[in-house]
Amino acid sequence: MTVAASRNDQETNVSTANSVHAKAIELGKQVVRMTTAAGSGHPSSGLALSHIVVELMYRQMRYEVSDPWNRGNDRLVLSIGHAVPIVYAAYADLGGVVGTDPDQRRPLSVDDLSGLRELSSVLDGHPNPAEGFPFFDAATGSLGQGLSVAAGLAAAARLDGIEKRIFVVAGDGESREGQVWEAADFIVDQKLKNVCVIFSCNGHGQAAEVSLQQSPEAIGAKAAAFGWHVIEVDGHDPDELSAALSSVATYDKPTAIIARTVKGWGVDLMQGSNFHGKPVPADQVEAACAELDATGEGLGASAGDPGRPKAPSSTAAQKAGRSGGLLPFEDALRRVGLAGALEKKRLATRRAYGAALVALGDVDSRVVALDGDVGNSTFAEMFAREHEGRFFECKIAEQNIVSVGAGMSAAGKIPFASSFAKFLARATDQIDMATISRANLKIVGSHSGVSLGADGPSQMSLSDIAYFRSMTRVDNGRGVAACHVFHPCDAISTYRFVELMAEIDGLCFLRTHRPDAPFIYPFDESFALRGCKSLRSGEHLTLVSCGYMLHNVLKAAGKLAEQGIECNVFDAYTFPLDASPILEAARGAGGVILTVEDNYIGGLHAELAEAAALTGSVRVSGLTVNRIPKSAKTADEVFTHVGVGLDRIISAATELAGS
Amino acid sequence: MTVAASRNDQETNVSTANSVHAKAIELGKQVVRMTTAAGSGHPSSGLALSHIVVELMYRQMRYEVSDPWNRGNDRLVLSIGHAVPIVYAAYADLGGVVGTDPDQRRPLSVDDLSGLRELSSVLDGHPNPAEGFPFFDAATGSLGQGLSVAAGLAAAARLDGIEKRIFVVAGDGESREGQVWEAADFIVDQKLKNVCVIFSCNGHGQAAEVSLQQSPEAIGAKAAAFGWHVIEVDGHDPDELSAALSSVATYDKPTAIIARTVKGWGVDLMQGSNFHGKPVPADQVEAACAELDATGEGLGASAGDPGRPKAPSSTAAQKAGRSGGLLPFEDALRRVGLAGALEKKRLATRRAYGAALVALGDVDSRVVALDGDVGNSTFAEMFAREHEGRFFECKIAEQNIVSVGAGMSAAGKIPFASSFAKFLARATDQIDMATISRANLKIVGSHSGVSLGADGPSQMSLSDIAYFRSMTRVDNGRGVAACHVFHPCDAISTYRFVELMAEIDGLCFLRTHRPDAPFIYPFDESFALRGCKSLRSGEHLTLVSCGYMLHNVLKAAGKLAEQGIECNVFDAYTFPLDASPILEAARGAGGVILTVEDNYIGGLHAELAEAAALTGSVRVSGLTVNRIPKSAKTADEVFTHVGVGLDRIISAATELAGS
Repeated sequence: MTVAASRNDQETNVSTANSVHAKAIELGKQVVRMTTAAGSGHPSSGLALSHIVVELMYRQMRYEVSDPWNRGNDRLVLSIGHAVPIVYAAYADLGGVVGTDPDQRRPLSVDDLSGLRELSSVLDGHPNPAEGFPFFDAATGSLGQGLSVAAGLAAAARLDGIEKRIFVVAGDGESREGQVWEAADFIVDQKLKNVCVIFSCNGHGQAAEVSLQQSPEAIGAKAAAFGWHVIEVDGHDPDELSAALSSVATYDKPTAIIARTVKGWGVDLMQGSNFHGKPVPADQVEAACAELDATGEGLGASAGDPGRPKAPSSTAAQKAGRSGGLLPFEDALRRVGLAGALEKKRLATRRAYGAALVALGDVDSRVVALDGDVGNSTFAEMFAREHEGRFFECKIAEQNIVSVGAGMSAAGKIPFASSFAKFLARATDQIDMATISRANLKIVGSHSGVSLGADGPSQMSLSDIAYFRSMTRVDNGRGVAACHVFHPCDAISTYRFVELMAEIDGLCFLRTHRPDAPFIYPFDESFALRGCKSLRSGEHLTLVSCGYMLHNVLKAAGKLAEQGIECNVFDAYTFPLDASPILEAARGAGGVILTVEDNYIGGLHAELAEAAALTGSVRVSGLTVNRIPKSAKTADEVFTHVGVGLDRIISAATELAGS
Repeated sequence: MTVAASRNDQETNVSTANSVHAKAIELGKQVVRMTTAAGSGHPSSGLALSHIVVELMYRQMRYEVSDPWNRGNDRLVLSIGHAVPIVYAAYADLGGVVGTDPDQRRPLSVDDLSGLRELSSVLDGHPNPAEGFPFFDAATGSLGQGLSVAAGLAAAARLDGIEKRIFVVAGDGESREGQVWEAADFIVDQKLKNVCVIFSCNGHGQAAEVSLQQSPEAIGAKAAAFGWHVIEVDGHDPDELSAALSSVATYDKPTAIIARTVKGWGVDLMQGSNFHGKPVPADQVEAACAELDATGEGLGASAGDPGRPKAPSSTAAQKAGRSGGLLPFEDALRRVGLAGALEKKRLATRRAYGAALVALGDVDSRVVALDGDVGNSTFAEMFAREHEGRFFECKIAEQNIVSVGAGMSAAGKIPFASSFAKFLARATDQIDMATISRANLKIVGSHSGVSLGADGPSQMSLSDIAYFRSMTRVDNGRGVAACHVFHPCDAISTYRFVELMAEIDGLCFLRTHRPDAPFIYPFDESFALRGCKSLRSGEHLTLVSCGYMLHNVLKAAGKLAEQGIECNVFDAYTFPLDASPILEAARGAGGVILTVEDNYIGGLHAELAEAAALTGSVRVSGLTVNRIPKSAKTADEVFTHVGVGLDRIISAATELAGS
């Protein structure tokens, strides 16, 4: 552990330190004023960062304030998102550019600060690049995710040959989030020594003081044990900060700076545990600002130039786009040694995913893959073999996987993040944050549903469909659904869905299954967004399913036909879904639909019931997993146990067709 | 860091060590046989634990094999769930009792082992107490959660004055999960020195070798930095294990034992990275068993008594149940200093939650509360003040909160776990596991929906309703829904829902909101499971809502009435919901329903559409949050921004009433 040399040990530039103090005070006053104007916010957390932000944004970071989209820029991830007003104040002072895209760019002005948190403002309550603050790469504010985002940015920069540094500012209390330590492991594994995290150790959480487990000493000891270079500084001493930050990326490890800070620095009223997330009352604003000025005077603060951001040292590489179409399906299977499946005409959708990802990676260098020690189950391992440098083994840490993917997306990559769908559920908040960031992230959940059988419910994802569907009728602000769900029944559709996912700019979820499944579609079948496929026609009833379950439904339709009940069968493979072809077919077949799903409620049944209930002309019943599953030797046994077995489908269909 | 004394340094009982070896070999052979019989499983991971399990289950743990429900028993949490066959083998050998409840108890026999993973077997693929293996307290198999469960068991035992030890066996690769370190912090904070985690460091993950970040040295250094007493042992040396395990709870810290183990111990074929999750081929079983025997011979294994479990040292305290009814609502508010709300007739539902929890805690000592540094936002702080010993400040670590709650539930507590609903989303997998465990856990998510306004989308939970609803039509195997959702519109209903939640034996979710809301119900109103409330009657249209949004809908109904459009208004406050009263009312009012929700799709609209589409006699339209929100100063501005503002409700209703 290094302790930054004290002021007297260095040849310091006293006038620079004094101008850093002066700038910190100037920005601090803006923070007080803007949060009071907004009527909410966290000014005391911002004041704790005042020197850190000045040192980073004026003196250490190499970036174009006029071009926040420049991929050569050093980046700042504000993991402690609620402290954001201090960054807004600095950025306005520097005339940094804002806007939702380069065509709408304009410099932020100091006057803009008073609009903090307004509907029309680019200055959201927490960092939110999608609303027009592109200085940030990802939405933060749900704590503990920033270091993972930074890891994604750093890994992407290395892939692109860009030399830049990624700074993260995190809170002490925030370091309680396990994801921080998942990211710490990943960054060491990946040797991303250009990442620097600064822990602002002000000792105060929201409800109380932070635990001794999050003391500066404890965080330092932990970071060291995780393999980081640790430097302790006084977070309000410009020289110590400068010395520490200047040394980043000169060690053979990533750097953790433990900065002792004061929550509400410079204003007595705002200090202590009782002033979290509160603006200063309007009638005390001037007194608070005067106190900040007095604090500055005591430190010898003097107006002067603390510096301006240096230009980035790297020229940003141009994004490489798609270089052509994917291999034909058969060739893609042969490419990864799956030619046998073409003979057998069956393949698990998870294996088809691997083949598709390899083929996609062949034609698009932006595609990267992340997995959590289950690449030989999700078949991300195929990509790892063929595109080694673009595969990231994240080990058993799903929250980190998702947020690293969000960071990579911000750097122009198209990340596919895979694990068992069940395990990815622990990254739900991270997926939410990626969605707010409008990350171009592809989540691939394998072994979903109960069809995996013997391993039992701890491995079965059953609420995933309800969760991901919930976002599919939500506009992301760019006319695109906030999430697209793809649920393939066979290898061919899986292959095409992976291709579609890469074409959508936004979050997608692909749900794959463990068992081998027969091919349903011709090798060259094409699939549309919001589409569905009619697989069988009949006049008595309409059956709708997707994924592995569709095969059971087709079997049921065959048996029903033997009984004289002829069914339409649809593969409703995606959300959002245009249900009109299904409703129309149903109207011609008794006006009754039966949906069958290998998941809990909130999926196909809900989607079709919502569509049907708009007009009321079609009735919809649904079979979903109706009890908590357990292990059984075969998928069919579990299907029966949870109410979606073949016999149950047939009996439900028979009843409906006769109703 | 302590290194266990080597064999020569101790007065060891050589014959005991030899009989431990012999038992390890005997159980190892069972593991090989049972997984091959099952056709799946993870025998190599089990063999790595063979000595650890013998030492724990025969020699160290104090428990009644004939009474796994005895609350004085030492407990074992198998966090590395896939290694479970070795525990099954030991338990069968000991004649341990199985069954879903004490009335159905029977001893497990060695013959039962061959039924591993069968539908009819209590021996699920991963630990699953609810299917009849009560030796375990919680379902595991999704990695990284066991230490938190253990913390919950230990904290509950201390509350009950029971002296017992909680052992956790975890994997090295598993320690990559951040939750492990969240639990490590919590256990130190809570001084739960009777918890001992044994990391089985076999060096192999599923897809590859574990990272150097998860080497025995790294895990040991991390555990020490987190404040644990660390002991390194050879995980196949009975004497080292015995010395280390005997010393648990004699230190002033919790104990982490770093056990170097061999994956596939004793059988060459099963070692290395390529043998994860694979049974031995049937024709090689005898050779593998012979190799185990030979390994034993080389170690001097000799049949003999390795010991039998000692009886628990504590007599388990009787569960205290409910001692009476809750205070009247008004008195409960006065009790926590909220009398003013009775005058103003308005109170935020999150504050009412705090008051209700205090009143519940007054009459039921099983009730405990957990929160993550936001108790002054969720108002769990009221409980902390009034029932201090039963409040657990878990700091900013939501995954740990949920799994600690699951552990407490297993020990007979009724845990209420609160945070912002948004942040609890990162514990989705943990909630899934608690559901599989049939934990009696109450999740309380505050600040949900967009009504919190200025803080912006990073704090807003919008998919929570879809997620929790997905489980509400799922039977937990005991005739109870796997989840009950409560979504109160006012303080009075909040109060009653907390009471209902305590009466349900299973998972519940309470969704509270940030803003103050006027009282809708009389102070003594009562509420039923699956119920809804008619708040207004009309002949033209039926409006259905819940939560804070209901107030907007009532306003809209008032304005619509001014336009001559008379609406039914229902508060559909719960899932599962009996929708029949709403459908019946709708049939008498034009046959059209409009739902209005402050969440993404998958909630009320889906629930009512599903119910309506069964018969097709009622049409249902829905308004839900239709775009990713951003900050705005007021809830109403955000409502308008995301398509659920008052004007939009009125225009949608007007259109429907005229259709």
